[in-house]
Amino acid sequence: RIMRPDDANIAGNVHGGTILKMIEEAGAIISTRHCNSQAGEPSVAALARVERTDFLSPMCIGEVANVSAEITYTSRHSVEVQVNVMSENILTGAKKLTNKATLWYVPLSLKNVNKVLEVPPIQYTRKEQEDEGKKRYEEQKLDRLETKQRNGDVIFPIINPEPHTVGYSQSSLIHLVGPSDCTLLGFVHGGVTMKLMDEVAGIVAARHCKTNIVTASVDAINFHEKIKKGCVITISGRMTFTSNKSMEIEVFVDADPFVDEPRERYRAVSAFFTYVSLSKEGKPLPVPQLLTETEDEKRRFEEGKGRYLQTKAKRQAQMQQAAQQ
Amino acid sequence: RIMRPDDANIAGNVHGGTILKMIEEAGAIISTRHCNSQAGEPSVAALARVERTDFLSPMCIGEVANVSAEITYTSRHSVEVQVNVMSENILTGAKKLTNKATLWYVPLSLKNVNKVLEVPPIQYTRKEQEDEGKKRYEEQKLDRLETKQRNGDVIFPIINPEPHTVGYSQSSLIHLVGPSDCTLLGFVHGGVTMKLMDEVAGIVAARHCKTNIVTASVDAINFHEKIKKGCVITISGRMTFTSNKSMEIEVFVDADPFVDEPRERYRAVSAFFTYVSLSKEGKPLPVPQLLTETEDEKRRFEEGKGRYLQTKAKRQAQMQQAAQQ
Amino acid sequence: RIMRPDDANIAGNVHGGTILKMIEEAGAIISTRHCNSQAGEPSVAALARVERTDFLSPMCIGEVANVSAEITYTSRHSVEVQVNVMSENILTGAKKLTNKATLWYVPLSLKNVNKVLEVPPIQYTRKEQEDEGKKRYEEQKLDRLETKQRNGDVIFPIINPEPHTVGYSQSSLIHLVGPSDCTLLGFVHGGVTMKLMDEVAGIVAARHCKTNIVTASVDAINFHEKIKKGCVITISGRMTFTSNKSMEIEVFVDADPFVDEPRERYRAVSAFFTYVSLSKEGKPLPVPQLLTETEDEKRRFEEGKGRYLQTKAKRQAQMQQAAQQ
Repeated sequence: RIMRPDDANIAGNVHGGTILKMIEEAGAIISTRHCNSQAGEPSVAALARVERTDFLSPMCIGEVANVSAEITYTSRHSVEVQVNVMSENILTGAKKLTNKATLWYVPLSLKNVNKVLEVPPIQYTRKEQEDEGKKRYEEQKLDRLETKQRNGDVIFPIINPEPHTVGYSQSSLIHLVGPSDCTLLGFVHGGVTMKLMDEVAGIVAARHCKTNIVTASVDAINFHEKIKKGCVITISGRMTFTSNKSMEIEVFVDADPFVDEPRERYRAVSAFFTYVSLSKEGKPLPVPQLLTETEDEKRRFEEGKGRYLQTKAKRQAQMQQAAQQ
Repeated sequence: RIMRPDDANIAGNVHGGTILKMIEEAGAIISTRHCNSQAGEPSVAALARVERTDFLSPMCIGEVANVSAEITYTSRHSVEVQVNVMSENILTGAKKLTNKATLWYVPLSLKNVNKVLEVPPIQYTRKEQEDEGKKRYEEQKLDRLETKQRNGDVIFPIINPEPHTVGYSQSSLIHLVGPSDCTLLGFVHGGVTMKLMDEVAGIVAARHCKTNIVTASVDAINFHEKIKKGCVITISGRMTFTSNKSMEIEVFVDADPFVDEPRERYRAVSAFFTYVSLSKEGKPLPVPQLLTETEDEKRRFEEGKGRYLQTKAKRQAQMQQAAQQ
Repeated sequence: RIMRPDDANIAGNVHGGTILKMIEEAGAIISTRHCNSQAGEPSVAALARVERTDFLSPMCIGEVANVSAEITYTSRHSVEVQVNVMSENILTGAKKLTNKATLWYVPLSLKNVNKVLEVPPIQYTRKEQEDEGKKRYEEQKLDRLETKQRNGDVIFPIINPEPHTVGYSQSSLIHLVGPSDCTLLGFVHGGVTMKLMDEVAGIVAARHCKTNIVTASVDAINFHEKIKKGCVITISGRMTFTSNKSMEIEVFVDADPFVDEPRERYRAVSAFFTYVSLSKEGKPLPVPQLLTETEDEKRRFEEGKGRYLQTKAKRQAQMQQAAQQ
């Protein structure tokens, strides 16, 4: 579809969140279709996890987004989907790969939303494909467990913070979940949640560096808990790390089922977003260093640095590999 | 209402699809109101057909759209509505007729959606009005039957197409039907479908000629099949004909009731859209000729030429008639 | 237009904010049209104030909103507009007055947004009309000055608050101002701001009483400061007063022109919203009493009580007057 002014920031760059929402919609369609391809109980595929995603080149207003999706692995209860987004300038015909994403879905019964159904197996053309898929499946399963334990952190408000401290840019947003946000099962689409997360992370980044910012990458996101229609969700973001030219922001999503529900507020999702600051010509700008004050902030900065260096090393290894081929 | 940036393309011209959506909403309101004006089973008017519509002058961001609707004929089971759209520049006070449309609605029972109810007859001021309406009614009925037969065609993807061939510009878009897209009966508003059709047709036209394009006219659209909430719809478009300054695009809408429905994918709507290419000063530009390769493409080109010449002849006859008066 | 699921809460009642947005759009159109009705510098009418508005009966999904607007007074630099909203059930034909609102607009030059232009005078059918209008004009002018002074208050976050305290339900929302939120001058439509204010106030009310809530009335809102495209706005709400069956919530809007602007964060708008809690049958429910802790909270509760009693007395006086006629 064509990118509209509302999909983009004032510099005309499409929000990362808009792209994540399109990716998730494509993934939900293909995996729901697959899970209902054999006779049996009807089901709706719910997003369980999105693997780390890099935004390779910014998309602009007026360009057309081409989204293609393919099922690459099935376990007994989950589906792995690979989604590619190409941006196409229909005036010049130029096409660019915007990003590639890998998503995991789980089929939930349409009649009983707490029941996970079985997934019809796909056919692999080579035995290797299945083995590699299984390896990816095991890895993400382990990672899901780990983040579940980490998930208890809370962002406390800070009064009169200094510029460039963590408290200065931290932000939060509340959203009342409406019918358009939800699947047939009455739960929020994963893509809607990711779009709101990107919105908060973008505001944190812009408050910190006060320039035009764009999403550079999103770390793996695990959806541990479903969010029901009618909930109020609070999305909070704080900066954890800055390199010379990038900012890492941690985002939490808490759901508050406050009408007619006995349940307390709970943490539904958390993730790390990385942003860069762009000049008017689209070149990356230096970013002011994050000032850490408390022990926790310093620890999180070091952890963020670890993730940053690891990603950088991985990317260099990939580039060397590519150069050798 | 005031036209916003999201209603328009990057050159500031309001999408034909936005206007079609407003027209259909006005038609649905007036015909639902009429069908419930007498005591009896409550009903919701569903769009059955839109007659050929010309876009007389482009509307721009910031202008106000004034939409007026009037019932012009009733048969036993259908209502004919005439809708006019005026664009008003509230700064200069200038008003222009943007388009006139004729829509046909059918009242469906609120309790049993497969039951078509009777329409209360309207009063005609002159006997002629009734006769002319009846003639229009018979004509559209015949045309509806014909398009139903034509509806089986499918658009296949083409790999590495040459510029200006049919395969080069053909496009498709997938949309998951949400609650805001639907009427009280849980079926997609005709206006929502037309807006998506216009979006796809616009992408096809822009891919072909790589300039700023606007909707010039829409041929009669017949809504043979309803589309239910929760369906995935695929809207595909391909170019069928080019004259020196216009492009004709055929658009298909297929619905995929992929959850909880035994039904196969089916063709819901099809229609022809005509686009022109505009220079920055708003003047029509020449259009590159469509290169036809297969026998089918050549046949469709000739058929498109037939429609083009017929419309041109009709318009000239009208102008001569107007000149003689 | 037809009310959609997205316009309403999960009980199907249309949000007060949706109605306020429609009212303001109608007011902006009629006053911009009037201000440009004579030759001279083109201008766009900007919302300066909305008088107190009562929501007389709830509107539901599927109903049609009929909005009518009329200019009732002009001063040298401002326009008073009266807007009525009728809800129409197109199935039964039943119409109800949803609310009446009075809005004040000021024409700003399209070329120089800081220049307020002159308003062409309207013709009054009776001298009394002009005198009464002038009286309303003087009253609102006085009230505007007063609220400007009150506007410095800030909502501080509270950690682990007790149920039914002020801190327990207070909420805030951030929103990045996009192109669709703005007028031709690049400033946020008053209606967009009011919709967001109603959203926050509704969340505060629902958090307090955990039931289905609807907007009952909005006190006069003064728009002291314009908000520019690209700003981040923070909308915060806190409960100030509860009667047996109503809740009063104070809402603040702060704008943060954080990209490319030398200006600090500033207070753009503030207002009081009153909500009631409804049972499934649509009857008003008792509301838990607000627990006030600090001196400021107690003071605000007494002030809210004052406003509540004043409104009640006014309404009784009007009813007696109506009964005597």
